[in-house]
Amino acid sequence: MPDYKAPLEDIQYLLRDVFPLMPFCQELEGFDDVDEDTCDAILGEAARVCDQLLAPLDASGDAQGARFEDGDVFSPPGFREAYQTFAEGGWVGLGGPEAYGGMGLPKTLVSAVEEMIQGANMAFGLAPMLTVGACLAIQAHGSDELKSRYLPKMYSGEWSGAMDLTEAHAGTDLGLMRTRAEPDADGRYRITGSKIFITWGEHDMAENIVHLVLAKLPDAPAGSRGISLFLVPKFLPDEQGEKGERNTLSCGSIEHKMGIHGSATCVMNFDGATGWLVGEPHKGLACMFTMMNYERLVVGIQGIGVAEASYQGARDYALERVQGRAAGGARNKDASADPIVVHADVRRMLLEMKTLVEGGRAFYLYVAQWLDRARYGSTAEQREEAERRVALLTPVVKAFLTDRAFDACVLGQQVLGGHGYIREWGQEQHVRDARITQIYEGTNGIQAMDLAGRKTRACQGALIAEYLDEIRAALSDTPEDLGYAVSAMKAAIVQLERCTEAIVASDHDDFVGAAAVDYLDMVGYVSLGYMWMKVARVEAERGEAEVPLHRGKRRAAKFYFQKMMPLTESLAQRILAGAEALEIPDEEL
Amino acid sequence: MPDYKAPLEDIQYLLRDVFPLMPFCQELEGFDDVDEDTCDAILGEAARVCDQLLAPLDASGDAQGARFEDGDVFSPPGFREAYQTFAEGGWVGLGGPEAYGGMGLPKTLVSAVEEMIQGANMAFGLAPMLTVGACLAIQAHGSDELKSRYLPKMYSGEWSGAMDLTEAHAGTDLGLMRTRAEPDADGRYRITGSKIFITWGEHDMAENIVHLVLAKLPDAPAGSRGISLFLVPKFLPDEQGEKGERNTLSCGSIEHKMGIHGSATCVMNFDGATGWLVGEPHKGLACMFTMMNYERLVVGIQGIGVAEASYQGARDYALERVQGRAAGGARNKDASADPIVVHADVRRMLLEMKTLVEGGRAFYLYVAQWLDRARYGSTAEQREEAERRVALLTPVVKAFLTDRAFDACVLGQQVLGGHGYIREWGQEQHVRDARITQIYEGTNGIQAMDLAGRKTRACQGALIAEYLDEIRAALSDTPEDLGYAVSAMKAAIVQLERCTEAIVASDHDDFVGAAAVDYLDMVGYVSLGYMWMKVARVEAERGEAEVPLHRGKRRAAKFYFQKMMPLTESLAQRILAGAEALEIPDEEL
Repeated sequence: MPDYKAPLEDIQYLLRDVFPLMPFCQELEGFDDVDEDTCDAILGEAARVCDQLLAPLDASGDAQGARFEDGDVFSPPGFREAYQTFAEGGWVGLGGPEAYGGMGLPKTLVSAVEEMIQGANMAFGLAPMLTVGACLAIQAHGSDELKSRYLPKMYSGEWSGAMDLTEAHAGTDLGLMRTRAEPDADGRYRITGSKIFITWGEHDMAENIVHLVLAKLPDAPAGSRGISLFLVPKFLPDEQGEKGERNTLSCGSIEHKMGIHGSATCVMNFDGATGWLVGEPHKGLACMFTMMNYERLVVGIQGIGVAEASYQGARDYALERVQGRAAGGARNKDASADPIVVHADVRRMLLEMKTLVEGGRAFYLYVAQWLDRARYGSTAEQREEAERRVALLTPVVKAFLTDRAFDACVLGQQVLGGHGYIREWGQEQHVRDARITQIYEGTNGIQAMDLAGRKTRACQGALIAEYLDEIRAALSDTPEDLGYAVSAMKAAIVQLERCTEAIVASDHDDFVGAAAVDYLDMVGYVSLGYMWMKVARVEAERGEAEVPLHRGKRRAAKFYFQKMMPLTESLAQRILAGAEALEIPDEEL
Repeated sequence: MPDYKAPLEDIQYLLRDVFPLMPFCQELEGFDDVDEDTCDAILGEAARVCDQLLAPLDASGDAQGARFEDGDVFSPPGFREAYQTFAEGGWVGLGGPEAYGGMGLPKTLVSAVEEMIQGANMAFGLAPMLTVGACLAIQAHGSDELKSRYLPKMYSGEWSGAMDLTEAHAGTDLGLMRTRAEPDADGRYRITGSKIFITWGEHDMAENIVHLVLAKLPDAPAGSRGISLFLVPKFLPDEQGEKGERNTLSCGSIEHKMGIHGSATCVMNFDGATGWLVGEPHKGLACMFTMMNYERLVVGIQGIGVAEASYQGARDYALERVQGRAAGGARNKDASADPIVVHADVRRMLLEMKTLVEGGRAFYLYVAQWLDRARYGSTAEQREEAERRVALLTPVVKAFLTDRAFDACVLGQQVLGGHGYIREWGQEQHVRDARITQIYEGTNGIQAMDLAGRKTRACQGALIAEYLDEIRAALSDTPEDLGYAVSAMKAAIVQLERCTEAIVASDHDDFVGAAAVDYLDMVGYVSLGYMWMKVARVEAERGEAEVPLHRGKRRAAKFYFQKMMPLTESLAQRILAGAEALEIPDEEL
């Protein structure tokens, strides 16, 4: 089993050379006290925790799995102790506000730490990830009392969070849900119903678990406009705010899943459980979206984390495993064979992985910057522009990065051949783990509908036009020796604009649905192209490159524009072919 | 868990309307006595056995897995009994020569039965598949004594077969292998060494297991030209030819794998085990290729089998599961939601699956016909032409069909959303099972090198030119209302020819390696296009279509040419971008 090493060097490169963190913090409100040494220390310490504490439990957690016994859920051996250490290190509250015990760091930095956590051990990483998501929803919509009672306990990691949306018959279509909430005399609510697919809904790592539950009030309008959000803790806080009486909720079972075996995916039963309303009645979906938008960004980051782990394993294997000879003649004449990295197709796989992982890393940092601007920008105009960019790119981060991360893990597994298929080398686990990121927090098809429908057609393409203006401006200001990249980008943008126009103009009901996934992929490839442009530009300005990482970036950028950008051409053709070919009656399927 | 139903209707459609079996049998030597009723009865009975005997053990076999205990391997509960019934039904020997107890049926028919077996239960299906592969090698290269001693026992299923190639340090590069064979005084050999990844190398289903083992003789030249093939049975036959004394070989352990848990993947240790040479000394690799070429075709068929199972599950789910509303307005106005098949993106996924599965099925039947012609063609010229087509298309069947089958299974899983990720619905198993088909019997990258290098560049593109001539002739003879398909095909063929020329002409050492996988995909998409042309033509000639299956074929053909053929455009661009972008020193990865 190869060791995961947090990609500290690349993260530092991106945060120094491509998206310099210090000047960026100065742009924002409230980060004057953030200094470079602190950030470096945090990244270094995070890498240490991930490499030494979390990564060693990744494969064992998968093999042993979470265990259900009479309503209790036991995390895999070692998880409980690791969680204590992790929480005590303050890692849950890294991005939380200082008022509630967090460290108040910008998302741009926090997201890099999140990648390391998810790459080291995704099953484990889901617990703090859901806690932070729940905190954000409480922070944005909860009463002051809920905030002061729950947030410090959650940001400290003593209590964890879970998000309870899905029901057996209501996944994507939350309007169908049946869980109900009855108001109590004392302003509290009684929640009754059953939820499925609740990640870390029950476990033994934290002392209490705070569920955010979607349910319907008695006077709820039908459909998704009648859903409210409730905070329902496993243990009710006592008067001192400490863990008190057990609430009437329980875990009915956990799922047998393809991957993330180390995490528990729970059926949660609420039997008149005590809860508190978060936000306005019937506005629960909007409250939940605060959480969902954060989670969607982190799911994209998860994908990159796992794909990085896969890349490391595949690269190291390709450098060591000897089979066959280089096409142009033996590299190791004295040995019986060459390392498989000499084979062009092996390097093709590694370079696809490298450009997707490193390009994806740049992209989530870029979007995290917009998220920081949306929250901490110094002017309303800046914050609004940032809101628009976040709205446009959140589905792209979630879906494109996870789809490409899955592709990358499949490639990583392929590099190892038969050894990739067995547990021993870890690659097959990455494929199984990465697969869920394409499904949960809204399937990637739903993300694509959000992008092509709500974020594009509904505003006549205004959001994407604004984004492409930004990219065009950057292209016009690019050194001449990057001409190959500029022309590839320009051609792809022209195609993307044609497709956008077609989506906006179409009068076929199904055009948007037929085009959505391909359109999201196009925006994704153009976005990663934009990232590789930024990197190529930094390197062009550097001149002589002495560090292998810098030279590797130049080559990777070239590979991306020559081998990956051409994929947009077929996507455009598919989109422009329209929706007629999708007409088929049920019985002909 | 949805029930697998063997795709009898589609198989019968293809064998009646697209590749009519009866006139085809008349073309061949030795199949005059094959009649339509017998073939129908065989297909119907095979479907029954697959649906009722094998499919019900697929999920349980995955959940329970094969078990290793002190050198013994226990197949999952139910497998042993099912194997007895299966063997007694004569299914192992369906395509075997009558002289050795087989039924002597043409590959075109047998391959359809193989798909049903693999689709119903791939882990189980591997046992007869490897037996038949071993039989073919013995038949082609073994002495008369070996043939008469082993083949009847193997075609009857009493004894099973295994193929022992890989060693821990020698997978793709067999020349590195260390297993050795010492000649004995009595013309036998003593085999010593260790092999890994031996599918069904040890188990409790058959009374004896016949290993075909690659090993080196003492005077072997270095590398892959020094490998010989040996038959090494678990039990030596006694004088009556029955199972006798135990041979000195043993199973050391079985692997923890991503999928096909129901099958045992064994480490096999040979400790001076008694064996017999098959074929000439040092010519073992050529002998093994007889087996490998058969296995490669069946692996492609396996992919289609599993993808069919995934398609059935996804289609049925999409027709039943209700979530959301059709974009053009509710379909089920009185219900709370519509079935998800109303969503264009869900139909897109189903149609991608349908066109790949049904197109892939047509393609393996087409290649099986060439295999039959190569063996039973009435003239030497016909047989030689067939040999050339089989040589060209075997890597395409193996790699393209399994890559697309994996894509299809991932789509099938995606259709089910969160339910696709849990064991209960079976989709995640299909993904895990299908994944191995891209890896074993030569990774798909190796297949692509075979196609682009040995089968294309080495003959200056003669094989592909002959194939494209066949396709062009068919296009020129196509009814006018299929113009949309003809023009899509012609455009793709022009691009394919450009890429072929580039592969033949390039003077960069790595051009072939850099282009190989994309080139194989192009040949694959063009081949499936050819299949959909044949189908579209049958349907155009039919006129009015009353059967849903026929109408579905028309729509699927249209979908294929509008939505799938455009993928060739990007592949061509990638190929023509050349190999320079793949140059990267180790330390920059």
